[in-house]
Amino acid sequence: MSEIKRPPKRFDYIDDGAAIYVDSFATIRRETGFDHLPADAERVAVRMVHGTGQIDLAHDLVIHDDLVSTARTALQLGAPIITDAHMVASGVTRARLPKDNEVLCALRDPQVPALAKSMGTTRSAAALSLLEDRFDGAVIAIGNAPTALFHLLEMLLDGAPRPAAIVGCPVGFIGAAESKQALEETVHEGLGIPFLTIRGRRGGSAMTASALNALAQEKE
Amino acid sequence: MSEIKRPPKRFDYIDDGAAIYVDSFATIRRETGFDHLPADAERVAVRMVHGTGQIDLAHDLVIHDDLVSTARTALQLGAPIITDAHMVASGVTRARLPKDNEVLCALRDPQVPALAKSMGTTRSAAALSLLEDRFDGAVIAIGNAPTALFHLLEMLLDGAPRPAAIVGCPVGFIGAAESKQALEETVHEGLGIPFLTIRGRRGGSAMTASALNALAQEKE
Repeated sequence: MSEIKRPPKRFDYIDDGAAIYVDSFATIRRETGFDHLPADAERVAVRMVHGTGQIDLAHDLVIHDDLVSTARTALQLGAPIITDAHMVASGVTRARLPKDNEVLCALRDPQVPALAKSMGTTRSAAALSLLEDRFDGAVIAIGNAPTALFHLLEMLLDGAPRPAAIVGCPVGFIGAAESKQALEETVHEGLGIPFLTIRGRRGGSAMTASALNALAQEKE
Repeated sequence: MSEIKRPPKRFDYIDDGAAIYVDSFATIRRETGFDHLPADAERVAVRMVHGTGQIDLAHDLVIHDDLVSTARTALQLGAPIITDAHMVASGVTRARLPKDNEVLCALRDPQVPALAKSMGTTRSAAALSLLEDRFDGAVIAIGNAPTALFHLLEMLLDGAPRPAAIVGCPVGFIGAAESKQALEETVHEGLGIPFLTIRGRRGGSAMTASALNALAQEKE
């Protein structure tokens, strides 16, 4: 390894990882505000903006008053994170997890294709059903498939064990905005589970992982 | 498994995975155009828009005339994909790869922390240097760290083996836009490696993985 040398620096850029974080977060706070969100959710929103490079994301975020305290407490108590996509799981910084929490995704479980077919829904949705016995007290994060979020809501309305919190940020052109609207409405109409979402078509694994990393620890 | 039942469907949504893809791609094509891009890059752009839920992404894409043919041929010949982030690697759909191609990311190599420190740069940048002997003919995809893209350009200008193509889509507020501008300029000023990038702060693992999945196969 001693033979590997840094090539000559030809561009003018910051190459200190810690400084990049500090400057990034300062830029975000200079350029936008988060007054419409609960005070304890500001760092979550900043990290989500950071993960996407998009300042205007802040306006579309909806964060329940109890989301941060409930999700953080659950993780501190050792709750698992359950997600619909391996990219989300891959984006969770394990060193930030307070209890070396499990990060679960069943999408590659060999039972999934047959289960999806028998259920008449997507693999992402069916995979969630395989983890139903881990829902109780978990933090469930949907960062890819609108069908997974719809399916999750249907499981919960049908009596599935109650997670501590839901991060619902599926992305896309077919059903994404609608699934997130259903999450908001279902929670307001009585499901009562603290949630985080982003209105519209935007979403995805990066911003979902950013939210989880911010919920895992208050430290930036 | 026979006991797992689908909960009653309470929302009106499309739950057929194949139909969702078809409708999504049709929506994207109805809402935007890709006339500023090479004709053979249209499907790549559509898939990147799809992965982010953002129609206006198309305007900021820059795709070299030879990018699609060069990257696709390289992958068909068995070239590895080299990336800066495990999220990108996780987002590559293995079933789309024509030769069960390797997808390499050295970020968790135990040598990385010490190497980054000795080089005076980020772990993401240092990790690329560990894979230099795999660069020749590879498809290199930077989907997270601007410092990794700057470092890659510096390695290439310093004589590192020449990859077949570069997908350069780091994201963020510090150095991202600048690193992608450097990619464009360096290539135009003589490096001559076909590339794909997105101007500005946007970028990230999801759109980078989408690009790779589109390059891997023409089939949608």
